[in-house]
Amino acid sequence: MTADVTMAQAETIMQASVRKARELDLLMNIAVVDVGGHLKSFVRMDGAWLGSIDIAIKKARTARLFDMPSGDLGPMAQPGQPLYQIEVSNDGLITFPGGIPLTNGNGQVVGAVGASGSTVDNDQAVAHAGVSAFDSAAAR
Amino acid sequence: MTADVTMAQAETIMQASVRKARELDLLMNIAVVDVGGHLKSFVRMDGAWLGSIDIAIKKARTARLFDMPSGDLGPMAQPGQPLYQIEVSNDGLITFPGGIPLTNGNGQVVGAVGASGSTVDNDQAVAHAGVSAFDSAAAR
Amino acid sequence: MTADVTMAQAETIMQASVRKARELDLLMNIAVVDVGGHLKSFVRMDGAWLGSIDIAIKKARTARLFDMPSGDLGPMAQPGQPLYQIEVSNDGLITFPGGIPLTNGNGQVVGAVGASGSTVDNDQAVAHAGVSAFDSAAAR
Amino acid sequence: MTADVTMAQAETIMQASVRKARELDLLMNIAVVDVGGHLKSFVRMDGAWLGSIDIAIKKARTARLFDMPSGDLGPMAQPGQPLYQIEVSNDGLITFPGGIPLTNGNGQVVGAVGASGSTVDNDQAVAHAGVSAFDSAAAR
Repeated sequence: MTADVTMAQAETIMQASVRKARELDLLMNIAVVDVGGHLKSFVRMDGAWLGSIDIAIKKARTARLFDMPSGDLGPMAQPGQPLYQIEVSNDGLITFPGGIPLTNGNGQVVGAVGASGSTVDNDQAVAHAGVSAFDSAAAR
Repeated sequence: MTADVTMAQAETIMQASVRKARELDLLMNIAVVDVGGHLKSFVRMDGAWLGSIDIAIKKARTARLFDMPSGDLGPMAQPGQPLYQIEVSNDGLITFPGGIPLTNGNGQVVGAVGASGSTVDNDQAVAHAGVSAFDSAAAR
Repeated sequence: MTADVTMAQAETIMQASVRKARELDLLMNIAVVDVGGHLKSFVRMDGAWLGSIDIAIKKARTARLFDMPSGDLGPMAQPGQPLYQIEVSNDGLITFPGGIPLTNGNGQVVGAVGASGSTVDNDQAVAHAGVSAFDSAAAR
Repeated sequence: MTADVTMAQAETIMQASVRKARELDLLMNIAVVDVGGHLKSFVRMDGAWLGSIDIAIKKARTARLFDMPSGDLGPMAQPGQPLYQIEVSNDGLITFPGGIPLTNGNGQVVGAVGASGSTVDNDQAVAHAGVSAFDSAAAR
C-alpha cells in the first residue's frame, strides 16, 4: 500500500482531470501534491487563467494540510465562525471547493488534487475526476 | 496585432488616465501591466496616497490574472460567496473596482490598467480612460 | 510561430527530460515556465529531493527572466563580481546551471525549463534534453 | 526647494534616462522612488529583461534607504566585510551599481533613480542621465 502518491499515479490523475476539463469545455490549472503537501505534478492548459496557477496549488495543499476537501473549510472560515481568517496561515490557504485529498486503501491521506479555472463546481468536478482515477487505479 | 502592450501604448494610457484624474480633481496612482502581469509602467501623481501604490499595481495584476475587471471578482469574494478570501492567493489580489484588462483587436488580453487613489468609482473611471485611449489608438 | 510554450510542447519537454533522467539514473524535479515566467508544467520523480521542487521552478523562472541559462549568471554573481547577491531579487533567483530558455524559430524566448535533483551538470543535462526535444518538435 | 521628487521631475528623469538608453542601444527598466523610498514612476522599455523590473526598483529603493549610490554598498557587503549579507534586509536590497540618489539644492536626498537591463556600467550611465536631468532642471 503506497504511503505517498507516485509519479505514475499523478500522471493518471492529470490525464483524468484534463479529460474531464475538455469534456466540460474548461481551461484548467491542475496540481497534485504529495503526502507532505509538496508539489508533485502540475499542468496548465493553454489559455487557463494565470491567476489560477497559485490557486490550484493552494487548493491541493489546503486539502492535504487538513485532510479534507478545501471547500469543507469554507463554512468554518466565514465571519463569526470558528476558523475565521484561517486563509492567512500557511502562506495562504484556499477554503473554497476544488481541492480534494487522495486517500489510499488504508484510509491514509497520501496527497491531494487541486483544480482552478472556472466556477468552483467545475473546479471540484475536475479535481474529483482525478481522485476517481486514482481510486480506480488503486482498486485494480 | 500586438500580443503584448508596448511602451508607447503604456504612455498613451498613462496620459489619458492622468488627464481624466485631473478633470475629476483626483490624485491617483496608475499602473500598467503587460501580458504576463508584470509591471510595464507606473505613475504616482503628487500627493496621491502612498498606500495606493501597491493597490494600483495589484488591481492591474488581478485584472490580467483573471482576464476580467478586478471589481467583477468582488461579489464572488464576499463572505458566503464562492470565492471568499481569494485575495490571499497570488501574493495578494484586489477584488474591488479600478483594474481593467487591455484587449487587442483579436480579443486577446495583452495587459491591464489599475488605478487607485479615490473612491472605487473614481478609480474605475480613471482606469477606464486609459483603456479607452488604448482602444482608440489601436483602432486608428 | 508560437509566442508562448503550449501544453503539448511542455509534455514533449517533460517526457524527454524524464527519459534523460532515467538514462542517467537520476531522480529529478522538472519545471517548465511560460513566456511570462509562470509555471506551465511540473513533475517530481519519485524520491527526488523535496528541496529541489522550488529550485527547479526558480531555475526555469531565472532563465526566462533574463533570457539566458541560469548558470550564465553564476560567474557574475560571485563575491566581488558585478551582480553579487542578485539572487535576493525577484523573490529568489538561482544562478547555477539547470535552467535553460526555450527559444522559438524567430529567436524569441517563449519560456524555459528548469531541472534540479543532482549535480548541476546532471541538472543541466536533463534540462537540455527537454530543450532539445522542444527544438526538434519545432523544426518538424 | 522641493522636499520630495515631483511627478514632473520624475517625467524629466524618465525621458533623459530613456534617451540615454536609446543612445547606448540598451533595453532598460527604469524606476524613480520618492523621499520615502516608495515608487513614484516606472517604465520598462519593450524587450527589456523581465527580471530587471524588480532590480531597477530595488536599486532605486536601496539608494534612497541609505542615501548613497547602490554600488557604494557593494564593497562593504562582500564576504568578510562589515555589511555582509545586508541584501536580505528590507525585503531585498541591491548593492551593485545602477541606483543613484536624487539630491536637492539644500543637500537633502528627495528620492532616487534605479536602472537595470544591461551591464552595471550601462545601468549606472542610464541612471546617471536621469539624475543629471534632475539636477539641470533644478538649477534653472
